[in-house]
Amino acid sequence: MSVDGPSEKPVHGPDHPQSVGHVQPRKAVFFESGPPLKLEAGGCLAPVEIEFETYGHLNPERDNAIFICHALTGDAHAAGWDSNPLGPLRSYRKNKPGWWDEVIGPGKPIDTRHFFVICANVIGSCYGSTGPLSINPETGQPYGLSFPVVTVGDWARLHMMLLDHLGIDSLYAVVGGSVGGQQALEIALGWPERVRRLIILSAGYRITAQGLGFNSVARHAIVNDPNFNGGHYYSGQPPLMGLAAARMLAHITYLSEESMGHKFGRRLQDKSQPDFTLTGVEFEVESYLKHQGESFVQRYDPNSYLYITRAMDYYDASLRTDGDLTRAAALLQAKTMVVSFSSDWLFPPELCRELVSAMCRAGRAVTYVDIPSRYGHDAFLVETETVSRLIDSFLRH
Amino acid sequence: MSVDGPSEKPVHGPDHPQSVGHVQPRKAVFFESGPPLKLEAGGCLAPVEIEFETYGHLNPERDNAIFICHALTGDAHAAGWDSNPLGPLRSYRKNKPGWWDEVIGPGKPIDTRHFFVICANVIGSCYGSTGPLSINPETGQPYGLSFPVVTVGDWARLHMMLLDHLGIDSLYAVVGGSVGGQQALEIALGWPERVRRLIILSAGYRITAQGLGFNSVARHAIVNDPNFNGGHYYSGQPPLMGLAAARMLAHITYLSEESMGHKFGRRLQDKSQPDFTLTGVEFEVESYLKHQGESFVQRYDPNSYLYITRAMDYYDASLRTDGDLTRAAALLQAKTMVVSFSSDWLFPPELCRELVSAMCRAGRAVTYVDIPSRYGHDAFLVETETVSRLIDSFLRH
Repeated sequence: MSVDGPSEKPVHGPDHPQSVGHVQPRKAVFFESGPPLKLEAGGCLAPVEIEFETYGHLNPERDNAIFICHALTGDAHAAGWDSNPLGPLRSYRKNKPGWWDEVIGPGKPIDTRHFFVICANVIGSCYGSTGPLSINPETGQPYGLSFPVVTVGDWARLHMMLLDHLGIDSLYAVVGGSVGGQQALEIALGWPERVRRLIILSAGYRITAQGLGFNSVARHAIVNDPNFNGGHYYSGQPPLMGLAAARMLAHITYLSEESMGHKFGRRLQDKSQPDFTLTGVEFEVESYLKHQGESFVQRYDPNSYLYITRAMDYYDASLRTDGDLTRAAALLQAKTMVVSFSSDWLFPPELCRELVSAMCRAGRAVTYVDIPSRYGHDAFLVETETVSRLIDSFLRH
Repeated sequence: MSVDGPSEKPVHGPDHPQSVGHVQPRKAVFFESGPPLKLEAGGCLAPVEIEFETYGHLNPERDNAIFICHALTGDAHAAGWDSNPLGPLRSYRKNKPGWWDEVIGPGKPIDTRHFFVICANVIGSCYGSTGPLSINPETGQPYGLSFPVVTVGDWARLHMMLLDHLGIDSLYAVVGGSVGGQQALEIALGWPERVRRLIILSAGYRITAQGLGFNSVARHAIVNDPNFNGGHYYSGQPPLMGLAAARMLAHITYLSEESMGHKFGRRLQDKSQPDFTLTGVEFEVESYLKHQGESFVQRYDPNSYLYITRAMDYYDASLRTDGDLTRAAALLQAKTMVVSFSSDWLFPPELCRELVSAMCRAGRAVTYVDIPSRYGHDAFLVETETVSRLIDSFLRH
């Protein structure tokens, strides 16, 4: 996601009273002995590490936990400052707060004075949970493409095991945006008795055919990069140009036509007349996308991008009940809030409303808000004030 | 453009009374001696070949000519059958009529019993007009990236020279869709006294920031293909994977979310259960895009794709009058019809309407039709019945 907003956002340094301060990721390891984890897609995995962070304190009743699901290329570092990030792909964390720091902290909508907040990285990612970059204990080498296909259902199951490990039976809420919203939905569907509130931002119960198409082109670009080498690139040059193309493409889908027009229009980059360059940068929008591609490849593993987009492809909450979304919605016991944004075309409001309608048909409690915004899919990270008010209000009642 | 329509279209064989029959492309050569062509972007080119086809007969008054501008990856073969196509990239023509055969022919909306129809290929393309695949007479080698940057303005100027060559002072009409509509507009703006009617389908006076972004990602994919080799790939393997990615991406922009949902949805390709394959084909939409990519690379030169998308990027009809579209519109003397399609998001109706509004403000005659259609940008080639009725009616009056 890009984080270009309507205005400069306040950044709370680690010593600010509304910051959760300095944080460090933690790890939980599962399937160290005994049979391995059997994945939904049929593969096996052992051991399975889950990286997570927590903020605030679990109360004696152990009923104040809120679980945060991160978006596609996100991580467990949702709030606070990780001033000494370990690992080559984590330098982007330096001198930047967690990805949802505006929403999580003392006195913020997800208030760490009252709630114990957990955010965990998904498997398949490259941010601490087991993924293609991890060492396969059987070979002593990174898994690469020998890593098994993982699904949103696997993410949800492992994160529920993490909650068991932390001694948390019941969640006050589960919250997620984009594919994180899909994981939040999956948790609420799979463990309805353990989830009291569900907040889904900018997400549908599945992606559209168009979304499948974009993901397919993105993977095509990575796999056909000259350095891809069947996914075995860890000892050489990674397929960074392919990953950059994938990210550039994804970025277009995160913005809206209107926000791109407003932000860049057809302005030239630092010049008043075009240079008439065929492959160089001419327009501001080209420069922006190029920058997004270049900075992303410093922080993400191309193989992980293949795995997590595929997980997004496969997710369809209605398949749990043979394609009948109303029957799936009937499984939910959580009070639910669904938030869409008018200009989001990756998870368009109509798609978000399908789940809401199914919940209504199933007689389930649901609050639905469609926020007028020009910021497209990114709006859930950009329209922070509106999102904060909604979350605050929903969590209080 | 894809040509998947709402139903099977009638194909008129070469012997059908409504077919223009067997046709052969012709060539006109300019700048064989004397100073070379000076291009808008500053480069020079000589000689300049233009490939074109004609259908019907020029009347003695020489005033019944209609000029057709092709779309991005189109060619001069708009109607009839070219049963013996020459050149390695033209085999796709075999056993298929020209790209607008449904609209051009005896008794068809652009009726070759009454009109003399000309369609010419643009420079930079790989279909007979001079482009990066052509031999640079100075080196005896294909131009590759030493080919100069070309613009829609250059296309228009050369095609007007072709009309001079054919002895045609004044066009009954100029017609084009997509970037062909932009060229049609450019001809009508640059030579207002030579154009009596202008028909623009699915095109705006410039592309949006989002469109610039998509073109930029497409070129990124081509340039970073392992076989690109700085554009010098003609004696080896061309960068076909990059070109395929570019085409797959473009195809998504030619369809609409609705049409993709309707045509493919999330159906699996020839199976009822997923294989859980990371990079293989799982969904129908993946198979479709893969096929579109693979068939396109059989028929298009990757370097040409760089040049023609760049020409599309640069085109902005308002720059002729310092960014004032109303002043540009005031230059038009042609009776104009603009047709947009409700689900077109590459050239959305709002963008098409900007030109229409500018013409209204300038007191120019314009007919505007927005056709409700789910076929997206492709609709101008898919909604043939509606388009035919509109063209027929507009040309008669």
